[in-house]
Amino acid sequence: LSTPSNVEDVGERSIIELIRQRIPPAPRWVTLGIGDDAAVVEPMRNTLDVLTTDAMVEGVHFDRTFTPPVAIGHRAMAANLSDLAAMGATPRVALLSLALPGSFPVPDVEAILDGLLALATRHGVQLVGGNVTRSTGPLLVDITAVGSVRRRRVLTRSGASPGDEIWVSGAVGTAAAGRGLHRARGARPHVETDGATTRAYLLPEPRVRLGGLLGRTRAATACIDLSDGLADGLHQIAAASGVGVDVDLSAIPVMPAAAAWFGTRGLDPVRSALQGGDDYELLFTVSRRQRSRFAAVRRLVNDVLLTRIGRITSEAGVWLASSGAREPVGAGYEHFR
Amino acid sequence: LSTPSNVEDVGERSIIELIRQRIPPAPRWVTLGIGDDAAVVEPMRNTLDVLTTDAMVEGVHFDRTFTPPVAIGHRAMAANLSDLAAMGATPRVALLSLALPGSFPVPDVEAILDGLLALATRHGVQLVGGNVTRSTGPLLVDITAVGSVRRRRVLTRSGASPGDEIWVSGAVGTAAAGRGLHRARGARPHVETDGATTRAYLLPEPRVRLGGLLGRTRAATACIDLSDGLADGLHQIAAASGVGVDVDLSAIPVMPAAAAWFGTRGLDPVRSALQGGDDYELLFTVSRRQRSRFAAVRRLVNDVLLTRIGRITSEAGVWLASSGAREPVGAGYEHFR
Repeated sequence: LSTPSNVEDVGERSIIELIRQRIPPAPRWVTLGIGDDAAVVEPMRNTLDVLTTDAMVEGVHFDRTFTPPVAIGHRAMAANLSDLAAMGATPRVALLSLALPGSFPVPDVEAILDGLLALATRHGVQLVGGNVTRSTGPLLVDITAVGSVRRRRVLTRSGASPGDEIWVSGAVGTAAAGRGLHRARGARPHVETDGATTRAYLLPEPRVRLGGLLGRTRAATACIDLSDGLADGLHQIAAASGVGVDVDLSAIPVMPAAAAWFGTRGLDPVRSALQGGDDYELLFTVSRRQRSRFAAVRRLVNDVLLTRIGRITSEAGVWLASSGAREPVGAGYEHFR
Repeated sequence: LSTPSNVEDVGERSIIELIRQRIPPAPRWVTLGIGDDAAVVEPMRNTLDVLTTDAMVEGVHFDRTFTPPVAIGHRAMAANLSDLAAMGATPRVALLSLALPGSFPVPDVEAILDGLLALATRHGVQLVGGNVTRSTGPLLVDITAVGSVRRRRVLTRSGASPGDEIWVSGAVGTAAAGRGLHRARGARPHVETDGATTRAYLLPEPRVRLGGLLGRTRAATACIDLSDGLADGLHQIAAASGVGVDVDLSAIPVMPAAAAWFGTRGLDPVRSALQGGDDYELLFTVSRRQRSRFAAVRRLVNDVLLTRIGRITSEAGVWLASSGAREPVGAGYEHFR
């Protein structure tokens, strides 16, 4: 029986080679991929480059005891693709920066790569470069993704106006419930067989197609992803657009399995779902004159649940309406606290 | 007297705000900077995007006891700009990914920013986005930089042919001597007043202008930077180009202060300089028909020492010639080992 080798046994170059072997053949617009001082790609004509970066740090964004390596890689890529989707951009290339503890097993590096490359490949995203280094502490997976969008098709947070409808994709709070559930169970979940909430947390599906369509067809005035939760997303759009938000509590889509989990903890399902992060869903606003375009988008993504949850107002603040009463919604948490 | 606040006291949003305040006004080709899901820039026509990422990890690439925060920021940016210079690209934008220990002092975050932004601004590079997160272990500063270059002006590692001259910018081994010197002194150096070797280690000057000129004028066949040392650079060019390398030991430029430091440790100055990393100098090859173009480049960068150190051969391997004898040169170190 051979023990799996650790990264300190094989060296940096072997890890880079292991990454290179896993990358599918590059499309023609990748002029130069991994292996030189930098990667070179050919941007399309009349398009804008959209750039984002997001890091997953062990002990902050995941716990190695509970999170299978394939999910660590998947989530790191998903966070970046979701940011590009929220801008209406089509993802094109990614760079991977890995900081690995010396005692980290090489098969786990391979599983991280499998997770992130499977998701990237599914969305036509090419890994073109990166950096591998040792970490004196936690595992860190940092991805930078670059996408493209035509001019005036960019979706920002600042375009919402009073009267716009507020829509959300998928269900809210599912990932928060899944995180709670699989931590409570205290073991590494089997991602293929576990329930929908655990899968939503470990293998979230970024809304790449929906975001690209909303941008291309100009069917939304503002857009953000729900990585920091619905409450945070509503606050961000309200602040950036200089508007207020009225949300109907009864309209917020919460999956029954997630509601059940919050219920067993004595928590209000919808209010918990509002504050929970890690859902890579899109929150966006649709103006009156965009409604027919948005109806066309809905027909194209008929496998994605889309729910109208409220309306943009001119009164500042984020408000939740339920059975006649109105209450202010607090902002989300911050990672340092 | 007020104690400097730590990052866990102020929260993630305050750190992002602190970054935003320090960034100079964006040029017009930055469509959207910090504050949305992603940044948006307008690439120039008929140009290629060149992408690179490089991370600095506490305990691996620097020691907080010895390295002033301003130098941590400077070096992280320098490593990325140097990679773009080695491709012949003009740097345009950067993204910053920070993983901060909870107890890390906010004034040190500000000093890191000052260091990286001063260097970026000097080279016309705009910080357009990034990510701030907590680290459960070391401080990590990860930068992704994007530059542009016209088609067929890209400098790779693979273009060298037998007969080409091998050139290097600046002096070799200076940063390695500076690192040794300032660690031996056991205190934080004063970067303004300390010697040339310490400055070369803490505040290296990436060869942005030289790299851009070599690319634009097609005055080099291959190029790499010396971040992993001269020996490593020679091996990389030899392997990527499928050629061999003959280097003249007596031609390798070593600063007297660096040679003196290696001498006091009982080390051979030139052989130590060959293996030392962290010099952000350029190593490049010039073919016979490029010589007049290269002479024109030399006149434009007459403040940079440029030295011919050898010749590309058809015989595989990296060889060092000294007083009639020839010896093989070993490759550089790897970070995991």
